[in-house]
Amino acid sequence: MTHLPASTSPTLLGLRPIRLLAGLSDEALSDIAQAAQFTRYRRGQTIMTRETHERDLCLISAGRVRVIMLAPSGREVRFRDIQAGGVFGEIAALDGKPRCATVLAQEDTLIARLAPDALGPLLQRHWPVCERLLRGLASAMRDLTDRVYELSALNVQQRLIAELLRQATPAHDGEARAWIDPAPRHTDLAATIGTSREQVSRELAALARDGLVQRDDDRLCLTLVDRLSDRLAGLATTD
Amino acid sequence: MTHLPASTSPTLLGLRPIRLLAGLSDEALSDIAQAAQFTRYRRGQTIMTRETHERDLCLISAGRVRVIMLAPSGREVRFRDIQAGGVFGEIAALDGKPRCATVLAQEDTLIARLAPDALGPLLQRHWPVCERLLRGLASAMRDLTDRVYELSALNVQQRLIAELLRQATPAHDGEARAWIDPAPRHTDLAATIGTSREQVSRELAALARDGLVQRDDDRLCLTLVDRLSDRLAGLATTD
Repeated sequence: MTHLPASTSPTLLGLRPIRLLAGLSDEALSDIAQAAQFTRYRRGQTIMTRETHERDLCLISAGRVRVIMLAPSGREVRFRDIQAGGVFGEIAALDGKPRCATVLAQEDTLIARLAPDALGPLLQRHWPVCERLLRGLASAMRDLTDRVYELSALNVQQRLIAELLRQATPAHDGEARAWIDPAPRHTDLAATIGTSREQVSRELAALARDGLVQRDDDRLCLTLVDRLSDRLAGLATTD
Repeated sequence: MTHLPASTSPTLLGLRPIRLLAGLSDEALSDIAQAAQFTRYRRGQTIMTRETHERDLCLISAGRVRVIMLAPSGREVRFRDIQAGGVFGEIAALDGKPRCATVLAQEDTLIARLAPDALGPLLQRHWPVCERLLRGLASAMRDLTDRVYELSALNVQQRLIAELLRQATPAHDGEARAWIDPAPRHTDLAATIGTSREQVSRELAALARDGLVQRDDDRLCLTLVDRLSDRLAGLATTD
């Protein structure tokens, strides 16, 4: 990582893409830019490490990051990818405990770090920013709640179907097919639904044998979306 | 449930136990009490149903509630029990989408419901309340993140050990033993770690055979806490 010296420090321009700060005046953005520490990371670098004690709120000025945890077995548990304009690190910034996940730069990435003692005054002064942060936390909690449910109550095939349906774009209104373009990598699916790559490959092969999915060049076609939904809703849980 | 008519409506007294509102003046509490709708639920009644569209923030004036989801298979996925003084329903109150979980009264319970359009002004006017809500959301996100990790990367025995260690009270400093008193019910453990009651019973029997846990009257004794921790950290994942 590279800390940028003050002379070359991106000014408020670096904060313009941040959705959390949308609508703030140039003056307010300048104040935040002065309090922020801008840091560049190269693709693949670790931006944040689980269990460490730093507590900055991180604003993604440019680039893309991935939030993960690594199991002792080496298995990656993937939480979310966040694009430029998004934020991460809210949990430790707000509750004061160590980092609960690890964050990696997926591209060359520019982060504006805001120290926790600058966050409180910012939220107090600008209610729309505070409201957006509250709404973002609520939405992240909703996603995590759904994911705990799926991991607890659905078997691997059902979790795979749920994830494929989330990723797919319907071909046309009322059509039975939907597409994922490009086709998702089996390792990515495995890290997202909490299983092994081998198990994803087995379950995709089983869905293909049943005529429910079909590889088509670089895309994956869900051939019968309704029947996939039925299978998701109806199958009994297995352990 | 019983809506209380205005004449018998609990006044600010009903809001005094709510930790989110701690430190507010009697005048501020009276304003909130007037905006709130107090409702009584009997033990076992449903207070909130997943997928419904009401969006009140719910303050637990008295009693205790349980947040769950039910799978089509009938399996219960348990999120958390919340005591008097706590709040629930923040997610839909903040992001405006349908309820993402179901909430049941575990005892006779008195809820003060605050409509979403009363929540914004309350948070804007009282920064300590807003800060406490932010911290509570962050802490809930941390718990959910850990749970997604455990469900994704740990096998059933490891998840069981993690939950037993969370529930246990060490006997004395430096001692190898810890106790859970009373011993947890197998169905409760199953709903919490995302497996079946039968599987919990099998894994507890396996831990007992290895001398790691022992039933002692109404309590469960973890006889070798260090070896349980090692097993949690070291075992490879199985699927």
